[in-house]
Amino acid sequence: MHPEGSVLVEFGATRVLCTASVTEGVPRWRKGSGLGWVTAEYAMLPRATTTRSDRESVKGRIGGRTHEISRLIGRSLRACLDLAALGENSIMVDCDVLQADGGTRTAAITGGYVAVADAVAWLGRKRALSGKPEAALHRSVAAVSVGIIGGEPRLDLCYEEDVIADVDMNIVCTGTGDFVEVQGTGEQSVFKRAELDALVDLGAAGCAALTELQRKALAS
Amino acid sequence: MHPEGSVLVEFGATRVLCTASVTEGVPRWRKGSGLGWVTAEYAMLPRATTTRSDRESVKGRIGGRTHEISRLIGRSLRACLDLAALGENSIMVDCDVLQADGGTRTAAITGGYVAVADAVAWLGRKRALSGKPEAALHRSVAAVSVGIIGGEPRLDLCYEEDVIADVDMNIVCTGTGDFVEVQGTGEQSVFKRAELDALVDLGAAGCAALTELQRKALAS
Amino acid sequence: MHPEGSVLVEFGATRVLCTASVTEGVPRWRKGSGLGWVTAEYAMLPRATTTRSDRESVKGRIGGRTHEISRLIGRSLRACLDLAALGENSIMVDCDVLQADGGTRTAAITGGYVAVADAVAWLGRKRALSGKPEAALHRSVAAVSVGIIGGEPRLDLCYEEDVIADVDMNIVCTGTGDFVEVQGTGEQSVFKRAELDALVDLGAAGCAALTELQRKALAS
Amino acid sequence: MHPEGSVLVEFGATRVLCTASVTEGVPRWRKGSGLGWVTAEYAMLPRATTTRSDRESVKGRIGGRTHEISRLIGRSLRACLDLAALGENSIMVDCDVLQADGGTRTAAITGGYVAVADAVAWLGRKRALSGKPEAALHRSVAAVSVGIIGGEPRLDLCYEEDVIADVDMNIVCTGTGDFVEVQGTGEQSVFKRAELDALVDLGAAGCAALTELQRKALAS
Amino acid sequence: MHPEGSVLVEFGATRVLCTASVTEGVPRWRKGSGLGWVTAEYAMLPRATTTRSDRESVKGRIGGRTHEISRLIGRSLRACLDLAALGENSIMVDCDVLQADGGTRTAAITGGYVAVADAVAWLGRKRALSGKPEAALHRSVAAVSVGIIGGEPRLDLCYEEDVIADVDMNIVCTGTGDFVEVQGTGEQSVFKRAELDALVDLGAAGCAALTELQRKALAS
Amino acid sequence: MHPEGSVLVEFGATRVLCTASVTEGVPRWRKGSGLGWVTAEYAMLPRATTTRSDRESVKGRIGGRTHEISRLIGRSLRACLDLAALGENSIMVDCDVLQADGGTRTAAITGGYVAVADAVAWLGRKRALSGKPEAALHRSVAAVSVGIIGGEPRLDLCYEEDVIADVDMNIVCTGTGDFVEVQGTGEQSVFKRAELDALVDLGAAGCAALTELQRKALAS
Repeated sequence: MHPEGSVLVEFGATRVLCTASVTEGVPRWRKGSGLGWVTAEYAMLPRATTTRSDRESVKGRIGGRTHEISRLIGRSLRACLDLAALGENSIMVDCDVLQADGGTRTAAITGGYVAVADAVAWLGRKRALSGKPEAALHRSVAAVSVGIIGGEPRLDLCYEEDVIADVDMNIVCTGTGDFVEVQGTGEQSVFKRAELDALVDLGAAGCAALTELQRKALAS
Repeated sequence: MHPEGSVLVEFGATRVLCTASVTEGVPRWRKGSGLGWVTAEYAMLPRATTTRSDRESVKGRIGGRTHEISRLIGRSLRACLDLAALGENSIMVDCDVLQADGGTRTAAITGGYVAVADAVAWLGRKRALSGKPEAALHRSVAAVSVGIIGGEPRLDLCYEEDVIADVDMNIVCTGTGDFVEVQGTGEQSVFKRAELDALVDLGAAGCAALTELQRKALAS
Repeated sequence: MHPEGSVLVEFGATRVLCTASVTEGVPRWRKGSGLGWVTAEYAMLPRATTTRSDRESVKGRIGGRTHEISRLIGRSLRACLDLAALGENSIMVDCDVLQADGGTRTAAITGGYVAVADAVAWLGRKRALSGKPEAALHRSVAAVSVGIIGGEPRLDLCYEEDVIADVDMNIVCTGTGDFVEVQGTGEQSVFKRAELDALVDLGAAGCAALTELQRKALAS
Repeated sequence: MHPEGSVLVEFGATRVLCTASVTEGVPRWRKGSGLGWVTAEYAMLPRATTTRSDRESVKGRIGGRTHEISRLIGRSLRACLDLAALGENSIMVDCDVLQADGGTRTAAITGGYVAVADAVAWLGRKRALSGKPEAALHRSVAAVSVGIIGGEPRLDLCYEEDVIADVDMNIVCTGTGDFVEVQGTGEQSVFKRAELDALVDLGAAGCAALTELQRKALAS
Repeated sequence: MHPEGSVLVEFGATRVLCTASVTEGVPRWRKGSGLGWVTAEYAMLPRATTTRSDRESVKGRIGGRTHEISRLIGRSLRACLDLAALGENSIMVDCDVLQADGGTRTAAITGGYVAVADAVAWLGRKRALSGKPEAALHRSVAAVSVGIIGGEPRLDLCYEEDVIADVDMNIVCTGTGDFVEVQGTGEQSVFKRAELDALVDLGAAGCAALTELQRKALAS
Repeated sequence: MHPEGSVLVEFGATRVLCTASVTEGVPRWRKGSGLGWVTAEYAMLPRATTTRSDRESVKGRIGGRTHEISRLIGRSLRACLDLAALGENSIMVDCDVLQADGGTRTAAITGGYVAVADAVAWLGRKRALSGKPEAALHRSVAAVSVGIIGGEPRLDLCYEEDVIADVDMNIVCTGTGDFVEVQGTGEQSVFKRAELDALVDLGAAGCAALTELQRKALAS
């Protein structure tokens, strides 16, 4: 009801509420630059997972995983925007995981883009942008998680698959198929160049499919 | 999907997700007492309100209002339960406000009761209770907010009414009409004994109506 | 020696040091409003109680009980004051429990009022109020704790009584007998409407007696 | 009322409440050593000084000055005790400054010794010591602050003198005139060897006078 | 002098002190698993950079960048080890940046491997491993940063190059040329598949050269 | 490479990296005073000692020992400077212990002086001082630790000696032999006046020798 942009993303059993909050003005250190500012915060409700985790507010500190994911979402969403055309406005994207079953960070990026697009449109209607809305939002982004399970590349791992995956990769692409971020990690085992290539191909294809869904969601 | 008890409460535009998480055993200081333990945590998503508030996890500390409400919910829900019949099990009730429009704490208590009832039933099916489920959950509770606006007692204030109310009262009753908690405050102005009585009557009637809705929800 | 208003309250074995500190000006978000600001902080010395509790400064966080009580004191003391007549001055009331034997929060409110009255008089002598002192301090407040023990309503519970009480209620009244705050809780057991009425009557009478004592203290 | 040892020290306008709390047993890392444990915590009420300081519990962290003073008091009071004769008991000494006018840390040590002596006597009556009370409390300690003002050595500086002193020294002595701690600092200016000697002489004489007062206080 | 493994890495003007500290036993939740535990902490001295940054200990919280890098180093170093052959021993790797000029995280991984190898050898000499040292340390790892500047792929970016790079990638490889981690990000601009391939090739070659240097360092 | 003043001090096996960072301007509360500001922060790398200690950044709070030492270093280095001749410039001195074997705080002061002298010279070359460099840096300071072991006064205790010392004293002197700070503590045992005198003599002689070394270091 309240936010300038808001979307509830569902990927399998994963549910992420992405909201974009607009503030006029930018943080003090950026004032007078003519550039906007976009940042993101990711969090999980305590019982989004199979066993309850303690709240980070109760622990009094934010864990490393939360920090790492918030930073990834923020970088990915800044890639959508021409900060000069956005003008001195700030967009804060909150991604709160209500229910988790794998792929929460990539769902957050994919949904976060839709919330940002809504917020830019809202700014456009208020005539608060420096440029046109389509100049401010100059790219779309979407993200998927891919992995290798039993030697096989797989798209959109659910939690149980994620746990047994040998390699786990997050791919963030633009709507025109360029890469914004590629993060592959093989903690359980290492991976060969051919596997890297296969995962990147699979991820890029997955992002293309999501881009289509985003277009439909924004058109309606 | 994951919790032992879970309900999404809607009161007007207010939306609160209440989940009950069961752990076998109790905190160390209570071990060997034969008694269970129930506690609650309340939180708001940053953009549940008309303007975004900073996350308490980011600020590194929980505010006084959050503490006060979490304690109220915990006391109210402990009143439902016979902790000896519950046995040495712990129930943690998380009440996360997704969208706020007044009455979030009373919605959390009313929904929290349903989540606790589900969790007790789940423990009963697992034969993990010391007593029977109906002994463990020996009362129902429901809560409403009432207030005086322009001299008139009113039930279920939305956010805009809450702001202008002269007196604001939260009433928690059992399903048999007894009182668990009565909290009336008149920060803007003070209130007379007759006004107190009128608010208590109105609140008790409101709780009775909610008790009926809870019965239907649990029956289905 | 130092504060603008200061009083050591003794209720039975309970001792609370209440001081009021005046600062010219108000917090930034309130500047230019013409209104004053009053807030309160409650704390216990570590060995105010029968067993020592850890300092909240050492734990690095303030507990929920402390927050809840500080907020109650602040609300009650703001009810005494016409913030427009106070002008843009801030009063911080510190209530530090040196020795605790039940009823510390109500003792803090009752003593806090005397400290605030001293501070308003001090501001009046300095000609720093927007209105007259008697306009700024437009009501007196006093508070008592009441409870039901073994079916019997009782005034001013000491610690041992408080622990065994079935119902526990804090009543804050003005000098003219109106209510500022009514907080009744029946964690151990629930309470009936007749019990609520009896407790409210008893509390109001207790507050009236304290109002008399406050008048004498301020007159001397 | 509650603590095992308790004393309210008055030095000029300075008031420090010193309490000693006894716990059977010692921290885990010291278990089985046969040795006791003594530690101290120093704090100021927010309005002990001419202008109010924020509470360290509210700031969420303890300042360097508080840490430094707590450590000095703890070291000084451990010098009184034979930790083997004390046995595996812990004594926590809380020194809370109610009103400050210079010399709070030395007042805390001098008063803390009396509280510790009370606590050891209490342990003796409970037959909880490994040795005799006079073996456990094998020395007395007292402390004074001395300084040089306008070239003149001075004992017991009040706040206004402390601020203008060229050199500031805290001396902790035993009842037999030996030194436990000597801390001299000349931030505003440096000091010569002859000045150091004069301050140490003056401080030792001051401690001897306080030792006499402690004896009388404990005898009564 | 003190640690079980220690190395000072120099990459250009970057200086990172990597130490490996061994503790017998593993964290409680891992006890009885037969598996070892390896984790890493990364930090910068406040004046490692051109302008001083505040200490994270003074700020009271660890920043997102520090968390993200510590986690990357930990994952990379766990890839070196067969945790079953390590047995229930813990290795903590501290990477402290004394002077920073780009590539600190990859320098930390490359140096951290040498410190871990020393620590495993130390455990082997103490006969504290479950398996043989060469089974416990079953792979080597090395890391480089690569980037695209002005359309050109470049190895080992110094700070000034890093700031202007269009794409920035960290590559972690084993001594046999497999990938452990690939992290590419194009915040300023996006990148094409061909650029991704070129960066991966360049990074893998860089890691191979470092593997050679590590072998020599460990042989001496 | 980066700091305005920087020195790596070696005292026995102790290694402390001291850097001085200059900022134009002073903290807000000091603006317009015409005076400069100097402060110091001391820290240990986690594995500077024989067993690893947890990072204070990870614990989220700075320990009492760290605070106490940082304050001592700051006071000692402010004694070197005429803050009016320094003008409104701030110098932050960071003392990071890379390897510890006793005497880290006195090494930090001795090295910190050299870093401050470099920073003042740097300010002089930039013509940013209010007075001349030799007016701004009007004294030199050096510090040593002395102690009594087995009845014998000893200079420069290493860690193993420090642990068994009966009395432990830190002496800070100016280049002309005046005292800046004298801190003697006899936690294990107390000390007599004659022992105090012997330690002060020994410490003053030690500082004189270090002053000579500082002169040579700064001359080169």
